[in-house]
Amino acid sequence: MIDYDALFDLSYSICIVGANDNGKINACIVNTVFQITPAPATIAISVNKENFTHDMIASSGKFSVNIVSQDAAMRDFGPFGFKSGKDVDKFTDVKYRLGETACPILQENITSYIEAEVIDALDIYTHTIFIGKIIAAEKINASATAMTYSYYRDIKHGKTPKKATTYHDSK
Amino acid sequence: MIDYDALFDLSYSICIVGANDNGKINACIVNTVFQITPAPATIAISVNKENFTHDMIASSGKFSVNIVSQDAAMRDFGPFGFKSGKDVDKFTDVKYRLGETACPILQENITSYIEAEVIDALDIYTHTIFIGKIIAAEKINASATAMTYSYYRDIKHGKTPKKATTYHDSK
Repeated sequence: MIDYDALFDLSYSICIVGANDNGKINACIVNTVFQITPAPATIAISVNKENFTHDMIASSGKFSVNIVSQDAAMRDFGPFGFKSGKDVDKFTDVKYRLGETACPILQENITSYIEAEVIDALDIYTHTIFIGKIIAAEKINASATAMTYSYYRDIKHGKTPKKATTYHDSK
Repeated sequence: MIDYDALFDLSYSICIVGANDNGKINACIVNTVFQITPAPATIAISVNKENFTHDMIASSGKFSVNIVSQDAAMRDFGPFGFKSGKDVDKFTDVKYRLGETACPILQENITSYIEAEVIDALDIYTHTIFIGKIIAAEKINASATAMTYSYYRDIKHGKTPKKATTYHDSK
């Protein structure tokens, strides 16, 4: 028996994962972002294959992770999660710069960012786990707290998109 | 430039990962546990190759994840992290049962448990990411809150073992 409530006890961060494929930038919300090894420092992300950002990371071999701040408003980061970069430019009203990887780094509403180059990938049914070697990371707001997924659900009353790693019909 | 403070903004849970290899049980603390796909439900863990539990999971192809409760005392779960199952029996004073996978499920100090069968693995320098298909999960304490890694560090003043995914000399 699988009680999905048990899975919700695992803690996640709300992150905006960015990509740059031949000058085209895009980003989507990913909550599955984890450090894998300390030295060399590597990070893993799990991205739904239906996300446009997924294909851009697979093609370009690099990604950025923007860790959303707890005090960010839904209107600031929500659009990254419920629209496709195929249809709209998600960066129209967003302050950002391009990092060392040329992937987008947000200038507001995040506590830190990480940039990585893909060194391996694993195909798991609907998602791909990309393993990235970290080439840059910076804490840009020392006083801000990162937003956890439980804070997003319980305090912000945020919904879980169907393409998320943690989506279940019952929730 | 890699600012390791940025990496500490990612949220993790404190979990005791259990194994059963031919009747020998063991467990270690792992903070890198995350869901990969919702259907079929899969979970990933990153385990240091030097851990005895690592070899037992690789050999047996199954593992349990015990999500530690925020109100657990250091003396209750700490021994799982700073000793090797090669040298001591970590379960001597622990209340547990064997789950569907025959891996150990703690009866105290956890909010939930998950059991999984390994379907894939990825070798990343010092660690292996095991991907498990979830075959059982249960929330056993609905009123308890799971312990995050930041709670462990900031409130419990817990230390990071050298074999952890998030260990850095500077911390």
